[in-house]
Amino acid sequence: MAAKGNLAVGQSGGPTAVINCSLAGILAEALAQEARVGEIYGLVHGIEGALRGELVDLRRRPPEFLAHLCQTPAAVLGSCRYKLRPEEYLQVLETLRAHNVRYFLYIGGNDSMDTSQRIAEAAQAAGYDLFVVGVPKTVDNDLPCTDHTPGYGSIARYWALHAMEAARDLEAMRRYDQIKILETMGRNAGWVAASTALGRCLPDDPPHLIYVPERPFDQECFLSDVEEVYRRHGYVLVTVAETIRDGTGRPIGRAEGAFTRDAFGHAVLEGTAQTLCRLVEQHLKLKARFNKPGTAQRVAAHCASEVDRREAYEAGRAAVRLAVSGQSGVMVTLVRESDEPYRCTTGVAPLQTVANAERRLPDEFIAPAGNNVTEAFLRYARPLIGAPLPVHAHLWRPG
Amino acid sequence: MAAKGNLAVGQSGGPTAVINCSLAGILAEALAQEARVGEIYGLVHGIEGALRGELVDLRRRPPEFLAHLCQTPAAVLGSCRYKLRPEEYLQVLETLRAHNVRYFLYIGGNDSMDTSQRIAEAAQAAGYDLFVVGVPKTVDNDLPCTDHTPGYGSIARYWALHAMEAARDLEAMRRYDQIKILETMGRNAGWVAASTALGRCLPDDPPHLIYVPERPFDQECFLSDVEEVYRRHGYVLVTVAETIRDGTGRPIGRAEGAFTRDAFGHAVLEGTAQTLCRLVEQHLKLKARFNKPGTAQRVAAHCASEVDRREAYEAGRAAVRLAVSGQSGVMVTLVRESDEPYRCTTGVAPLQTVANAERRLPDEFIAPAGNNVTEAFLRYARPLIGAPLPVHAHLWRPG
Repeated sequence: MAAKGNLAVGQSGGPTAVINCSLAGILAEALAQEARVGEIYGLVHGIEGALRGELVDLRRRPPEFLAHLCQTPAAVLGSCRYKLRPEEYLQVLETLRAHNVRYFLYIGGNDSMDTSQRIAEAAQAAGYDLFVVGVPKTVDNDLPCTDHTPGYGSIARYWALHAMEAARDLEAMRRYDQIKILETMGRNAGWVAASTALGRCLPDDPPHLIYVPERPFDQECFLSDVEEVYRRHGYVLVTVAETIRDGTGRPIGRAEGAFTRDAFGHAVLEGTAQTLCRLVEQHLKLKARFNKPGTAQRVAAHCASEVDRREAYEAGRAAVRLAVSGQSGVMVTLVRESDEPYRCTTGVAPLQTVANAERRLPDEFIAPAGNNVTEAFLRYARPLIGAPLPVHAHLWRPG
Repeated sequence: MAAKGNLAVGQSGGPTAVINCSLAGILAEALAQEARVGEIYGLVHGIEGALRGELVDLRRRPPEFLAHLCQTPAAVLGSCRYKLRPEEYLQVLETLRAHNVRYFLYIGGNDSMDTSQRIAEAAQAAGYDLFVVGVPKTVDNDLPCTDHTPGYGSIARYWALHAMEAARDLEAMRRYDQIKILETMGRNAGWVAASTALGRCLPDDPPHLIYVPERPFDQECFLSDVEEVYRRHGYVLVTVAETIRDGTGRPIGRAEGAFTRDAFGHAVLEGTAQTLCRLVEQHLKLKARFNKPGTAQRVAAHCASEVDRREAYEAGRAAVRLAVSGQSGVMVTLVRESDEPYRCTTGVAPLQTVANAERRLPDEFIAPAGNNVTEAFLRYARPLIGAPLPVHAHLWRPG
């Protein structure tokens, strides 16, 4: 057990729908740990707040604050992407010391876990009894050591719904637009793109083709895939991660030939979906359009997964319990205990193991042809998106 | 009262979240009108189905069909944008006659009402006792004679939620991206762009600037608006309709200088939001990004307005009642009876009056500077989006 002290919490990296649920869990547990936790500080814009000495009081908030927090997307404290320079670690420690902070909790992804690990090391080297615990967060689901990451279930639910709805739109309008390409987040890992398949009822349901960063993209295969599905269904719903690369590692949409130039001669980068639309129109003479909801997908709290919300909250609570029990240099993990019924609890992993690794879609989740996901992926991801999806009516199918 | 006969229904134009609710209302009422309505046919892809003789039986469906229909976006019968050639009207009448159709119901927007009107005229000229009733549908909310149009409440709810969420994202990340531009549907009317303001709690809340097709767009004013808001808040959320025009009537993003060229020298059109981002980055040196959810916005049944769903359903029922009571050449309208509490009933308008008119945002709904909406607009639109929006937590504000 650590002695009584103050707690500081920061939020870092790209927003998700449930980061504030983790903050709510931290706050609720910290308030409950009266014997261990004194003041509760929020770092404004994460570690930058520690550098600038910008902290806010989180203890004295109106009674409805916690409930509102759980339905607020993004990061109410403000987020950051700041990489501390070596000399700045001491400055962070100074701020924390000046506020008598004993527990330092950081909600974030790989980079934030790296920052947390270095702060833990700096504190230890300085003989400062600081207990550092990370809370995982990322829509990318690319953190190792944890079954999945808070934030992923909600973006997966968003895409499952969006793909179902886009499919209905495309079916209704197939006499005009035949190809629709959905561009999801995901620079190195295809977890988000894969989640677009979660609304399928039958294996042949849209999205018909899914392209992920884990596999090289071959233009000829893509065009013949699209043509084949079009011949079968009369329309094609395609999902593509924002970054996919050709066999030489060059990102599609950034490769030569995909540059466009504006009136001033500046190169304008096409997005990946835009490039695929252009390829389809040029080579197959089919009408292709794309949806690119951008940041909307990561903060879609209005359709967040209740499972994700609850797990983010519990991860926050677990982090406080770990810190006050004297653990440091660790991250809370999610541990799946069973698939059906789905049961998940929290565990713990060393920050060091998490900080510099990246978990991509394993081979068994990607179809051999590299243009789809497998049933194994669907089994893995289905429990994470919460309540059953709506059942759509079809004219040529029961229901 | 018309004699007993069969009923045919078609869906036409761009999808919405609630067109199928109108179909469900038609189906439910037609089944209830046993004394008047015999077979119930769905035209596959609207009037094109009538031309090709493609009709489906809607009477014999599983019991859960109606409930599923109400939660299915787009148009389960398939939609169309087909403009009948003069000689094709007789072909349509032939198909309808061959199926003993006495009641012809068409769910659609301005163009579909025009088609319906011409079918009614052609039937009358041919001495065919056909009762033609239109059911309004469009996310654009641009039909005259009706307080609002089924489909609008749901897209308005989508954008109210999306703008709130995008605002939280931007606040959290303002140290990196300062300007976010949301591009909504709307080629001639700003109803959809305006709806992004419905999530505001305080008048100064984001979106800070809203540009609609009803006002000419002035680049200098835009840049100084953005700069001013940025100085005040540190970030700017902007909404823009997909088509806005400069003082000479040239669409922004399609004007000279906004063309880009791909590697083959083809002109690539920038979207409106993309052009505004480029202007901001070039002139103000601020980081600007855009969200363009494309067709996702019109079929977002997962966050449909319950008010919109109910009204779409009731409009469908009312259409059947009008037809079997012997009315023809009319469209169902929505008539607002009171604002608080919100009460709305159905009325009727001649198709002819609806077919060739377009309702744009009235002056009293647009701020004098042309860069925002008024409180009068918010009062008009608030009841249409259904259940109260979630309350977000803020650090520097009560709650």
